[in-house]
Amino acid sequence: MQIGMMGLGRMGANMVRRLMRDGHECVVYDINSESVAALVKEGSIGAESLEAFVGKLEKPRCVWLMLPAAITGRVAAQVADLMEPGDIIIDGGNSNYRDAVDQAARLATLGLSYVDVGTSGGVWGLDRGYCLMIGGPDTAVRHLDPIFATLAPGPDAGASPAVGDTGTAHLGYLHCGPSGAGHFVKMVHNGIEYGVMAAYAEGINILKAANSGKRHREADAETTPLSEPQYYQFDVDLGAVAEVWRHGSVIGSWLLDLTADVLKTDSALSKFGGRVSDSGEGRWTLKAAIDTGVPAPVLSSALFDRFSSQGESEFADKLLSAMRYAFGGHIEKSK
Amino acid sequence: MQIGMMGLGRMGANMVRRLMRDGHECVVYDINSESVAALVKEGSIGAESLEAFVGKLEKPRCVWLMLPAAITGRVAAQVADLMEPGDIIIDGGNSNYRDAVDQAARLATLGLSYVDVGTSGGVWGLDRGYCLMIGGPDTAVRHLDPIFATLAPGPDAGASPAVGDTGTAHLGYLHCGPSGAGHFVKMVHNGIEYGVMAAYAEGINILKAANSGKRHREADAETTPLSEPQYYQFDVDLGAVAEVWRHGSVIGSWLLDLTADVLKTDSALSKFGGRVSDSGEGRWTLKAAIDTGVPAPVLSSALFDRFSSQGESEFADKLLSAMRYAFGGHIEKSK
Amino acid sequence: MQIGMMGLGRMGANMVRRLMRDGHECVVYDINSESVAALVKEGSIGAESLEAFVGKLEKPRCVWLMLPAAITGRVAAQVADLMEPGDIIIDGGNSNYRDAVDQAARLATLGLSYVDVGTSGGVWGLDRGYCLMIGGPDTAVRHLDPIFATLAPGPDAGASPAVGDTGTAHLGYLHCGPSGAGHFVKMVHNGIEYGVMAAYAEGINILKAANSGKRHREADAETTPLSEPQYYQFDVDLGAVAEVWRHGSVIGSWLLDLTADVLKTDSALSKFGGRVSDSGEGRWTLKAAIDTGVPAPVLSSALFDRFSSQGESEFADKLLSAMRYAFGGHIEKSK
Amino acid sequence: MQIGMMGLGRMGANMVRRLMRDGHECVVYDINSESVAALVKEGSIGAESLEAFVGKLEKPRCVWLMLPAAITGRVAAQVADLMEPGDIIIDGGNSNYRDAVDQAARLATLGLSYVDVGTSGGVWGLDRGYCLMIGGPDTAVRHLDPIFATLAPGPDAGASPAVGDTGTAHLGYLHCGPSGAGHFVKMVHNGIEYGVMAAYAEGINILKAANSGKRHREADAETTPLSEPQYYQFDVDLGAVAEVWRHGSVIGSWLLDLTADVLKTDSALSKFGGRVSDSGEGRWTLKAAIDTGVPAPVLSSALFDRFSSQGESEFADKLLSAMRYAFGGHIEKSK
Repeated sequence: MQIGMMGLGRMGANMVRRLMRDGHECVVYDINSESVAALVKEGSIGAESLEAFVGKLEKPRCVWLMLPAAITGRVAAQVADLMEPGDIIIDGGNSNYRDAVDQAARLATLGLSYVDVGTSGGVWGLDRGYCLMIGGPDTAVRHLDPIFATLAPGPDAGASPAVGDTGTAHLGYLHCGPSGAGHFVKMVHNGIEYGVMAAYAEGINILKAANSGKRHREADAETTPLSEPQYYQFDVDLGAVAEVWRHGSVIGSWLLDLTADVLKTDSALSKFGGRVSDSGEGRWTLKAAIDTGVPAPVLSSALFDRFSSQGESEFADKLLSAMRYAFGGHIEKSK
Repeated sequence: MQIGMMGLGRMGANMVRRLMRDGHECVVYDINSESVAALVKEGSIGAESLEAFVGKLEKPRCVWLMLPAAITGRVAAQVADLMEPGDIIIDGGNSNYRDAVDQAARLATLGLSYVDVGTSGGVWGLDRGYCLMIGGPDTAVRHLDPIFATLAPGPDAGASPAVGDTGTAHLGYLHCGPSGAGHFVKMVHNGIEYGVMAAYAEGINILKAANSGKRHREADAETTPLSEPQYYQFDVDLGAVAEVWRHGSVIGSWLLDLTADVLKTDSALSKFGGRVSDSGEGRWTLKAAIDTGVPAPVLSSALFDRFSSQGESEFADKLLSAMRYAFGGHIEKSK
Repeated sequence: MQIGMMGLGRMGANMVRRLMRDGHECVVYDINSESVAALVKEGSIGAESLEAFVGKLEKPRCVWLMLPAAITGRVAAQVADLMEPGDIIIDGGNSNYRDAVDQAARLATLGLSYVDVGTSGGVWGLDRGYCLMIGGPDTAVRHLDPIFATLAPGPDAGASPAVGDTGTAHLGYLHCGPSGAGHFVKMVHNGIEYGVMAAYAEGINILKAANSGKRHREADAETTPLSEPQYYQFDVDLGAVAEVWRHGSVIGSWLLDLTADVLKTDSALSKFGGRVSDSGEGRWTLKAAIDTGVPAPVLSSALFDRFSSQGESEFADKLLSAMRYAFGGHIEKSK
Repeated sequence: MQIGMMGLGRMGANMVRRLMRDGHECVVYDINSESVAALVKEGSIGAESLEAFVGKLEKPRCVWLMLPAAITGRVAAQVADLMEPGDIIIDGGNSNYRDAVDQAARLATLGLSYVDVGTSGGVWGLDRGYCLMIGGPDTAVRHLDPIFATLAPGPDAGASPAVGDTGTAHLGYLHCGPSGAGHFVKMVHNGIEYGVMAAYAEGINILKAANSGKRHREADAETTPLSEPQYYQFDVDLGAVAEVWRHGSVIGSWLLDLTADVLKTDSALSKFGGRVSDSGEGRWTLKAAIDTGVPAPVLSSALFDRFSSQGESEFADKLLSAMRYAFGGHIEKSK
């Protein structure tokens, strides 16, 4: 079927490629005309303006937005102005699900459908397929089924056979509920992702310290001595351990697959500085937990560690040093 | 080759079966004679006493202990008394790696080798193979290679091809270092496992609360109102979501495979009460983090949640209620 | 000076008493006419309706609302309808500071001032005085100074002399900034309160367990053995320890004073069940931390423990048990 | 009465001064002879060697050790060699309570008493008095009562009258139980201290960020936008807020007194770098919590933040960045 894709960054462009591969007709647009030209060369139909883009679409028009969350709302409104009742806007970006709830209600008054699609798969999605978490009205979601079926991994990607009947879930895409439900599920997905990543990172950091007993340790009043150094004499090959865990252990996962590759290539991680960004979903997940009174100590610890890695605990830490000096005369060690 | 297995519980018995399947000769012993009889029927050589068990082994004798951590040390000493220089004792249980360090040093003075093997795979290991994390002297570990190769998953189990040269890691077993290194790596493995499990559990608990806006909420001074119920109107099919995440998403894993199966079968988890045990490794992982000064907020949050699930936060919570009453006259809501 | 007080619960009534004691004229109103009658007996001027209440006030009218957060906004709007430019509404309740920001902007268009006053002191405020954190326009805040000066503890309550010039802070009241600033500072105050309370509660819970080595411990595969019981043989008198900490230690505090009293009276805390409510500020504090990217692992741990005490971790814990059963065949111990 | 003090650092020297002020005879020794000379000038009896030091004491000899934890055990053994049955050694340092348990058992076989005294009060103890948490045999503890009574704050230091009968607790010293109990209680005291300090530090860090809405925020894919900047427009005077909280609020404490002084003097904390040391007790508290299965999420979060401030989360954070690059092509922002 035909689909319009707006936003041809890393994610959007690859999704167009995966759709064309499977025979769909893609009309594409981006403010960067080179991105458009590149995909036209590969077989897409390009457009030079938003008006031209919408004009080239057959009714009901389906426009998939793959844009930064910060501008998605504004662009969706512009697109809507050019549409007619029955048309469909899809938001595949990392938007806050609350915006999808509000946007869908607004567009419904114009007869337009708003479908929010949480999309996971990263740079690997072109080949592995994208996991799609979908929210929106039934009719629109059903209409887009051929698109979802192509973008998703399809029947073979699962590690073990499915149990029970969960519709299209075993194919890698799922209609999760009304507008907002897709981004809500994707939000929690990313919250979990932070927690899982942090669990591996903390554990591997402990493995790295398994030879602490070999290192010289300063013996001053501001450094706690390592009382039993004989138990910390292991030089662990982090890459080999991550690799072995991939085979038959309880903690095997796709993130571990990537982690093993990373550590086997550069176990010192010398290309990275340790400033870990967060893209919003982890924050929103925590806010949802707080609103609904659900404890989420692991997910919040993972998020707060990222904040600390960004330098945001510095003032609090200075205050702790200041208190220690005030009550005990403790002089801070240099950093 | 020949191996003696002592301790024929769920894990030990299945390991014997996997070894026999691949042509190894298994001499087996357990204080429960029925367990011995069952495996004899399947082709093992049984023994009626510890002396008989050790007596049936060829030199160098290899005795694999698959016992509860609490008795492994005592039994290892008894076995050692019946052995001769050059013999090997393997501890495949969930022992503290410190005991392995100490035990290996003691047995080395008798000319015996002690090999500690962290074993992951649970009830699935018989068919999937066991992930083996091995510590001990080179000669003994090399001698046991055929046994490890059989117990481990072998060449095909990984989800993606290996990068770099990590010895046998891609086959699912790894010599991690001297005595203690195997249990140390297994310990951290389980610490990570707790964190990963908790990340899924917290996230799915938030998904479950996505319909909080539909529920009636008491409006008293001791209950925080849900300020924007319109954003919590989703009835999420937890099993379907866990299933879709298995296909192409960043958080796919073997634990998620199991979680999806569980939720698809019984999304209310009615067979469980929520008292989560811990078997020691999570605790030891945290102690190692503390000794070496490595922050582990996610792993500790996961462990402490288990303690709370066992009722151990009750007194602290009563004290909080008591303080609230003391300063503000707040009356506790009934539980 | 004259002040109108609406909302004569525990907090509001005591504030009226403290104001009258110091010679202020209090006009009082509550939907519960008995509460009005009681204070009239003590010297207040009562009113039978909102209209009568506002009608009895001299210009500029000053109405202090001491109401549950859930209804403050609605009542403030009703009061505003009866007012004239130059009049002042004060919100002394536990409202979200965002509501104060919005409300102040709305009322400013009517020529009214909105002053938000975070109030700490609980049931002890009548005698000790209330700590007041004030937000709002300068003129209105200055006009109310005699009221604030009376409600606050005044010059003698501090434990040590003040350093530097911080205006009225050493008297126990402070103009923190524009509308919303008072409730914002109070919000963070309560966030800190949760953390401080939890620190004491966790520590005292550890003290309580100091005799664990004396207790019989089940020896099954689902219970981690206590490896060195000889180090857990202390029967600690919790009340006496809390008392001694009040005298000269680094952790002396008013909350510890209360805690000591509680534990000395009933060290088993038999009157409490351990269901700890939260009143909103802790949640909002965390949301502010998340919005601004400030790590708050301690404050969030304290909040999430309260959620768990309310039973909200149950589903997550069931899921952990379900996973453990799925991969390892672990049977849950009964709760 | 007479007491021997060995270890004349900041703490030891001040304790000698407080004892002399109250009429006790102090025999003093330190490997640094200048420290000895200084106190001799103030009225102490000095000694030039360990032998001379012990020789100058009357029976039963009472030797108080105020030394770094790392050397206390060795020195105690040397002192014991010079003693006779009935003599008493007191350890007032920050030793692990387990060492006290073991040491007491060893010395008991020689007829010596070992008394462990957890001492809180820091540089303020000379004037305020020290809070003493005491473990050891009854006879020895009773014999030392005049010393404890002098070192402790005494009858007037409490903020409110005592409830019930807790022996000497209201005077600021307490016999907590057998050998080890004093250091155990002190250990938990410091664990709580970390938590309380972190609660203030995190909260005040949030207050500092209350003007985030005024700051320019980069708008790139690696930075989460602040969605409602209008709610973060407050420039909070941190010193004034800390001061006002000291007067009548629920979170008043001695640590807050110190914090207010610090912030009023230098609200940017420009003299500190934010590397927060920990002296061991926080670690041991967590280990005790883990051993006994008591959840301590707040205390552990506080400890782990200190580890992070020491740079120990760096490798884990690099690993998170590496994973993000591996699955999503995310480029790390420079630190």
